Amino acid sequence: MTHSAQPSPLRVAVIPDSFKGTLEARQVAAAVAHGITRAAEEAPRDIVIDELPFADGGEGTLDAVLAAWGTPTQTCATTDAIGRPCTAAFAISPNGRTGLIEAAQANGLAAVSDVPLRASDATTRGVGTLVQAALDQGVEEILLTIGGSATTDAGTGLLRELGARFLDATGAELADGGGALKDLAEIDLSGIDPRVRDVTWRIATDVTNPLTGPQGAAHVFGPQKGAGPEEVERLDRCLGHLAEVVEAAGGRPLNDVAGLGAAGGMAALLYAFFTVELVPGWEMVSDALGAAEKIGSADLVFTGEGRFDTQSLEGKVIHGVRQLTAETTPLIVLAGQVAVDAEALRASGVTAAFSIGRGPGTLEEMAPHTAENLTWTAYQVARLLLTP
Amino acid sequence: MTHSAQPSPLRVAVIPDSFKGTLEARQVAAAVAHGITRAAEEAPRDIVIDELPFADGGEGTLDAVLAAWGTPTQTCATTDAIGRPCTAAFAISPNGRTGLIEAAQANGLAAVSDVPLRASDATTRGVGTLVQAALDQGVEEILLTIGGSATTDAGTGLLRELGARFLDATGAELADGGGALKDLAEIDLSGIDPRVRDVTWRIATDVTNPLTGPQGAAHVFGPQKGAGPEEVERLDRCLGHLAEVVEAAGGRPLNDVAGLGAAGGMAALLYAFFTVELVPGWEMVSDALGAAEKIGSADLVFTGEGRFDTQSLEGKVIHGVRQLTAETTPLIVLAGQVAVDAEALRASGVTAAFSIGRGPGTLEEMAPHTAENLTWTAYQVARLLLTP
Repeated sequence: MTHSAQPSPLRVAVIPDSFKGTLEARQVAAAVAHGITRAAEEAPRDIVIDELPFADGGEGTLDAVLAAWGTPTQTCATTDAIGRPCTAAFAISPNGRTGLIEAAQANGLAAVSDVPLRASDATTRGVGTLVQAALDQGVEEILLTIGGSATTDAGTGLLRELGARFLDATGAELADGGGALKDLAEIDLSGIDPRVRDVTWRIATDVTNPLTGPQGAAHVFGPQKGAGPEEVERLDRCLGHLAEVVEAAGGRPLNDVAGLGAAGGMAALLYAFFTVELVPGWEMVSDALGAAEKIGSADLVFTGEGRFDTQSLEGKVIHGVRQLTAETTPLIVLAGQVAVDAEALRASGVTAAFSIGRGPGTLEEMAPHTAENLTWTAYQVARLLLTP
Repeated sequence: MTHSAQPSPLRVAVIPDSFKGTLEARQVAAAVAHGITRAAEEAPRDIVIDELPFADGGEGTLDAVLAAWGTPTQTCATTDAIGRPCTAAFAISPNGRTGLIEAAQANGLAAVSDVPLRASDATTRGVGTLVQAALDQGVEEILLTIGGSATTDAGTGLLRELGARFLDATGAELADGGGALKDLAEIDLSGIDPRVRDVTWRIATDVTNPLTGPQGAAHVFGPQKGAGPEEVERLDRCLGHLAEVVEAAGGRPLNDVAGLGAAGGMAALLYAFFTVELVPGWEMVSDALGAAEKIGSADLVFTGEGRFDTQSLEGKVIHGVRQLTAETTPLIVLAGQVAVDAEALRASGVTAAFSIGRGPGTLEEMAPHTAENLTWTAYQVARLLLTP
């Protein structure tokens, strides 16, 4: 929207988290933008609002990126972590150069929760199919989010779908899954799709666990994927053996690399042999959205989350947004509940935090009014700041 | 408080109503000022805060004025509406020229609620004693608030204490109270204290009722002072008779003057014969506090009340403060509950309204935190506005 009263438009970035259980981040952003727009129409003031729903590489990332890119959802027939057919979604950037893949669309834990979990057998083959679909669209960069996985196969399934072979000492192909890696003798990349080498991989990891050991993929994440204590030990040894084979084959060393323990080591083999950057999920997504530039050049930044407390200040949203916001730019937090004190607020770099409730009321009474309360409170703040 | 970072200090006026049942207006003002001060200390920014607790001539006016003037409470031995000894308080301005008298300190309804009410006999004599005490301090102006009275004597008792005589056809003095006025034949002002003529009277009336008739003092306010239907009729006739005698004696006509029906006609005789201005209570008090000048010259004005709704917009606080606030000066409302819509807010001239709660919670849970929540919310708003 534009008006003619002011020479240069006020740039406002709205980059909220979801209000858990109430509104998705994009709905929060829309409600806040609505309030600011209303105030700007009254002022009247030229403004440009960038709605940048927060996503950190976890649940909701694909939706947030699709909304920001404004490109159609791509779909692909693939398979889940136990090999059953399924349909998965992914995103292609407006310029066609970048594909965003949420691995859990294919190897997610939730999709296989209807059967007894088999941690040693679960495979990332379906993710490979998704990658291939993105490559077929001609992308030069693949953004891969790997949270929520059911697999512990170190990404072997993914690479198999793209032409790699994992062989035992007899030259036979191993079975799917991490459990089979105990017999791994050779990694054969001769048949790999050349585009796997040509593209740049950026893989979002929000944990710092290494591939193996007590803090590794098997020990920390194996149990939630159905691995009992003995299976955890076996899987950990399999991953360790894989790292040895990789290193013997001239791959990058995998031991002690922070983040390779994420998602059953899904990034490990890509990292070993291809052009891979491991990045925090929030950074990857904000890059994809151009958020850093939009927030950095904003005159005013709004963020928000359901509950704003001292944990928020160490968390991804507030902390990330503050880092991207210019030091002299006001950063405003709108929250269902504000539970920080003055000292924490000052230390956080947040300029001001407002709770959105309009009076006494229980959470149950307030929750249905979250969107309108966000709009109202953003409208108040914007009136205050935009009034000539 | 002063800092040296800015050339000219930011002037902030804080003029809230009470939060009924929770905080008095001066406590609200102090809590808001505390939050603003904290933000200014951080900025750092030169600010001057005027705390002007709202009072409208009703309950709390004397306290508010005493707090604003910073003068000691004056006390005076006097009598209540049925002649019992009591002690009453009043205020003298810092320059000694103005006395503020809350008539109800002497003729109040609450003080005589322990006995059966006698509307026809209740007298304003005690108010006259209070006036005399103020005159003895050498004031040139008397501000008189008259709400909450137990009397319907048209101010005859008040003037008697100051030397007037009210005589029947035989030249005998009438008994006290409005009921005796049926026999009034002559008003003798020859013995009146000359200071009653010399001073300027400003009398706060927040009702527009005339002295007599269906909307008059007896009909509208008589019943709450204990008058039954017949007594109401008698008192109304008494007041009408008084008006005739006044006019025959060369006094200003009393019929149909808006406001003379307040407090049993307490202002009527003063209005008839002396230099009296009837003013809205809010205007009188704000003049006394220098509020108009302080609000008018403020760069930023905060007001507040327990519940901010469409009634507030027609009421005394928001409406009055808006009228005194310069058009381009932000006016911020802090409230326990904000129940206006965007259209009403815009129409009101209020820049922004914030509810002070920090999250979900019932009124019972929130009420004990009112002061700290006011401080917190004022702090947020001030951080937003003071951040360079």
